[in-house]
Amino acid sequence: MKNLLRNVSVLALAGVAAATAFAADYESYEAFAETEGYALFTANNLWLLISAALVFTMHLGFSTLEVGLTQQKNTVNILFKNVFILAAGVLTYAFWGFNAMYPGFAEDSAGIFAAGSWFGADNADVSLMTDAYAAYTWWTDFIFQAMFAATAATIVSGAVAERIKLSSFMIFAVILVGFAYPLAGSWKWGGGWLDGMGFYDFAGSSIVHAFGGFAALACVLILGPRKGKYTKDGKIKPILGHSMPLATIGVFLLFLGWFGFNGGSVLSADPLLVSYVFVTTALAACAGAIASMATSAIVLKKPDLSMALNGILAGLVGITAGADTVGVFSSVIIGLVAGVLVVFAILFFDKIKVDDPVGAISVHGICGIWGTLAVGIFSTNADHSFGTQLIGTLSYGAFAFIFSLVVFGAIKAVMGVRVSEEEEFEGLDIGEHGQEAYPDFSITSR
Amino acid sequence: MKNLLRNVSVLALAGVAAATAFAADYESYEAFAETEGYALFTANNLWLLISAALVFTMHLGFSTLEVGLTQQKNTVNILFKNVFILAAGVLTYAFWGFNAMYPGFAEDSAGIFAAGSWFGADNADVSLMTDAYAAYTWWTDFIFQAMFAATAATIVSGAVAERIKLSSFMIFAVILVGFAYPLAGSWKWGGGWLDGMGFYDFAGSSIVHAFGGFAALACVLILGPRKGKYTKDGKIKPILGHSMPLATIGVFLLFLGWFGFNGGSVLSADPLLVSYVFVTTALAACAGAIASMATSAIVLKKPDLSMALNGILAGLVGITAGADTVGVFSSVIIGLVAGVLVVFAILFFDKIKVDDPVGAISVHGICGIWGTLAVGIFSTNADHSFGTQLIGTLSYGAFAFIFSLVVFGAIKAVMGVRVSEEEEFEGLDIGEHGQEAYPDFSITSR
Amino acid sequence: MKNLLRNVSVLALAGVAAATAFAADYESYEAFAETEGYALFTANNLWLLISAALVFTMHLGFSTLEVGLTQQKNTVNILFKNVFILAAGVLTYAFWGFNAMYPGFAEDSAGIFAAGSWFGADNADVSLMTDAYAAYTWWTDFIFQAMFAATAATIVSGAVAERIKLSSFMIFAVILVGFAYPLAGSWKWGGGWLDGMGFYDFAGSSIVHAFGGFAALACVLILGPRKGKYTKDGKIKPILGHSMPLATIGVFLLFLGWFGFNGGSVLSADPLLVSYVFVTTALAACAGAIASMATSAIVLKKPDLSMALNGILAGLVGITAGADTVGVFSSVIIGLVAGVLVVFAILFFDKIKVDDPVGAISVHGICGIWGTLAVGIFSTNADHSFGTQLIGTLSYGAFAFIFSLVVFGAIKAVMGVRVSEEEEFEGLDIGEHGQEAYPDFSITSR
Repeated sequence: MKNLLRNVSVLALAGVAAATAFAADYESYEAFAETEGYALFTANNLWLLISAALVFTMHLGFSTLEVGLTQQKNTVNILFKNVFILAAGVLTYAFWGFNAMYPGFAEDSAGIFAAGSWFGADNADVSLMTDAYAAYTWWTDFIFQAMFAATAATIVSGAVAERIKLSSFMIFAVILVGFAYPLAGSWKWGGGWLDGMGFYDFAGSSIVHAFGGFAALACVLILGPRKGKYTKDGKIKPILGHSMPLATIGVFLLFLGWFGFNGGSVLSADPLLVSYVFVTTALAACAGAIASMATSAIVLKKPDLSMALNGILAGLVGITAGADTVGVFSSVIIGLVAGVLVVFAILFFDKIKVDDPVGAISVHGICGIWGTLAVGIFSTNADHSFGTQLIGTLSYGAFAFIFSLVVFGAIKAVMGVRVSEEEEFEGLDIGEHGQEAYPDFSITSR
Repeated sequence: MKNLLRNVSVLALAGVAAATAFAADYESYEAFAETEGYALFTANNLWLLISAALVFTMHLGFSTLEVGLTQQKNTVNILFKNVFILAAGVLTYAFWGFNAMYPGFAEDSAGIFAAGSWFGADNADVSLMTDAYAAYTWWTDFIFQAMFAATAATIVSGAVAERIKLSSFMIFAVILVGFAYPLAGSWKWGGGWLDGMGFYDFAGSSIVHAFGGFAALACVLILGPRKGKYTKDGKIKPILGHSMPLATIGVFLLFLGWFGFNGGSVLSADPLLVSYVFVTTALAACAGAIASMATSAIVLKKPDLSMALNGILAGLVGITAGADTVGVFSSVIIGLVAGVLVVFAILFFDKIKVDDPVGAISVHGICGIWGTLAVGIFSTNADHSFGTQLIGTLSYGAFAFIFSLVVFGAIKAVMGVRVSEEEEFEGLDIGEHGQEAYPDFSITSR
Repeated sequence: MKNLLRNVSVLALAGVAAATAFAADYESYEAFAETEGYALFTANNLWLLISAALVFTMHLGFSTLEVGLTQQKNTVNILFKNVFILAAGVLTYAFWGFNAMYPGFAEDSAGIFAAGSWFGADNADVSLMTDAYAAYTWWTDFIFQAMFAATAATIVSGAVAERIKLSSFMIFAVILVGFAYPLAGSWKWGGGWLDGMGFYDFAGSSIVHAFGGFAALACVLILGPRKGKYTKDGKIKPILGHSMPLATIGVFLLFLGWFGFNGGSVLSADPLLVSYVFVTTALAACAGAIASMATSAIVLKKPDLSMALNGILAGLVGITAGADTVGVFSSVIIGLVAGVLVVFAILFFDKIKVDDPVGAISVHGICGIWGTLAVGIFSTNADHSFGTQLIGTLSYGAFAFIFSLVVFGAIKAVMGVRVSEEEEFEGLDIGEHGQEAYPDFSITSR
């Protein structure tokens, strides 16, 4: 029985070969484990794995931030979307994305068109990386990068919240995470054309954040604002979120996760580099918070908690491209600028009626560009040029924007992208899931 | 004064000897620290400690999941229970459980009856493990395993929520965690009779999860369903939870903690094995989510968030027994099957009027069995047999079930196990604690 | 353009020198990376960085604990304060505190007056610690200690909640974290007069917790109780919190973070010491919970969740001074005593009309003193004396108390420290921020 089922599974699923190879490789691995370099390899690999766990935590952060800043009636829908994005993102990355993003390009692809495959099939014999960067196993690389991959769609999720059709979002998210993100990511991190140009994006201000932010912008333009957000006489009516504690929990968890997002992007546990990246990351985040607090106090006449939270994220997105190459004082400046920028960006998009419930386009899109350009301004590495950084970040923003316009536009044409006005009014929790977020919540004491 | 008190403490408490021994051993430890192997030992030990912290996080995850899926009026009670389980679980494990579970068995015990003791007393001279598995200190081993131990009672806590008497639960939980879990655990992890048979359970699909799930089943059968859950005319009336955000936070934290639960069960920071376990664990969890989403969409005609969350847990429980021995594609299949299974199991138990508010019996009991059997089906290690896996998992399930029937039945006979109908209606927060979960919560804006 | 901006930035901000130095030092660092000791250094440094991330998590824990135990109408204000404390704390620590706390004292300062500076300027050439403790980089040291620094003001934040003026608090917090904390910290951890005396405070029962607790006491005395807390006829009217789940999440996260707070204070990943500290920390926390549960059940006639949570924290604060020097059984006793103590302390302060909404003075102040004295009672190191411990802890308590009396008193005289009675009644969320915590929260199902 056991053998029968195992044979069926082997026949049906080539992927099981990976485990066999895993076992087969073990001989040489054990020889490696006897070498002097093994202890350092173990420490390096451990940090990447812990970083993967930290980046995983960001998905919880995104989830609670997004539900906190939106209306109660769409909470179940948003949580469902975030669970789906993580699950589908990791699986599609295993099926195609990882091998598309990293091992390179088809011949004559000019470093633009990457080809991928299920990782178990093509890389069955690569259980241990052995090139110059060998600070982690192949599996570690996958899990760390897979946790990054789902982030792009998560960013979109926040911007399109409270009126997008669940099925349309799910299809779009899978295409974006499974296809567009690894393709574009390969341009730099897979050694493609932007890498060849000398473009620098340490942990992904452009590759992850501006990419997600501009994909979000395209979707929001196609989708239109939430009903009632902009009145007929041109006024902006704020639609408030339903839980600032949840939003704050989200931002703290994102800050925490960013130690892995940036710290893990060192791709080893190099004590000097990782600790330096921790410091620049934390300083930029803290500076972003202070700047947003001050800016909101001046512009909005009150110290605004949502803006303070967005200021932290702005600082984090801003430092992501250059966390290992800018000075510590520069990291403070990058954070301060990001914190000011994000407040004005949020007000600007609201003014031009781009309705983004959580400020994702401003935080990830605008500050992602800022962070990438900041490398061109503050980097201590003379090879980094402002012009190249500009080309790179515009390429990511433009590609994500146009790709999303086309794909999300096509989805709109085929099946629609927006829930009915009635469902939007009633809430997507009931409309899409037949569930409420707080069905038993009651105020018993008064 | 100082010496007086110290002497009193020494006389009164033999345990203080541990610290003395700790100091005494330091000489040889310092010699060890000069050796070449010390750096690797440090990295290995570090991972186990971090894993302990991750498994600790699961207790927060269980707490918020359980309160999220239950009624508001029982929230304080559930939180109190979870704090108690953790505290009592760690202390009883120190007092008896750890030494019962690991160092072995009394003579002529046939690998079944383990004897334990306070860890400070008997193991005062063992501050550093020196056997073949020496990848961590003795203290590290304790804290990692202690974090596991409390989990069994936590699983029960969810199933019996909303009608169990606090005092009865506390007594049962202490006996289960302090006595039954280490005893049964020793059969495999302590080198007992199941280990001798070749039974395999990597991180505890059976030893922790099926054990907890079937203990829960016994308790629920004795306790009976919540009032109003099953109407006289045979209908099932859903009793909804009070916060899906809390439930979702719980599942994300459990997913996070599982990287330590499974990853730490490698018992070293072995780069290849730990990273491989991360990948199989994440793939199974993601596959479980997708499968539950799809199954609920088909069976319940809606994409259900609770089921998606249970699907993640189902995938995690399912992969736990074989995370290091099955292929990556197999891990996806194991997760998919678990995700389908859990939906039908939850519906089934509801149909036969086994009232389990959080689905713990299905998630931990049923998927725990599935995961253990899956090793017999998908393992790449030819020594693993379906038959042995079946014997092992049934042994754990049956022992937990019968033990709980007897002990919980005895508690029922002596002092009762269920709150009064009036208290159940009013809520256990007021009834058992005189506190409310949200006493100052009010809706001020409308 | 790039060079222009970079030059401006260099001219304007001396701190950028740090990055240059960072690059300059890299030569020697690379040589170090080839040595045998580098793998161990990497593992040690990694643990300190992860500990920094864990201590960071404590700030989220403090935030949710504080909002959970206070009224809904002050939630935004409390979250804002906590974000501000973290951001301002890290930045001021970079600007002055870190260099004041550690590298020592001005000549003729008698180990009392420490002088600091922006860390990038003075320590540009110190990117790698090379003294006897060299288990981490200079940047690692900064980020770990910076995460500690903000804690002192966070403790105060809880005690003064629900009636303090935001601007006054912000000014006080910056002075306390930026100036008083590093100064006092240097007395022991910077090698000052208390260190010379043989005072021992492993991870800061006095230096962090009693310091924060007695600063809080001074502020509360100046501020006075919340309106309505103590009625004219001498009765105590409880003002209940608004979310026990948030409070519980907070305590679990603090427990988690404490593994880094105490474990990281080993200042290396020494397997024996760190694992031993994990065990004593966990046992004390669990014992504290059980003791508070029992004490509250006896004294208050009900098993109280808030007290159980405070018991965990009491145990953690209590073990912090001696986590590496007391026996494991002693750690249980220390936790038990702390758990009893905190219940009576909370009741006592309430009786004498010191209104502390979250019990911070009892948890951090009283148990901080207890933990410091416990080293004098239970330490296995004969050099630790009760008398010295008493002098040390009273010095920290007295300094924090008097400093806060003077500074907070001066702030009161200049600008006031308390919101208007009307604002207090309406809530600080509206009064200070014009925001509500749950603006869209509604009970739709009934």
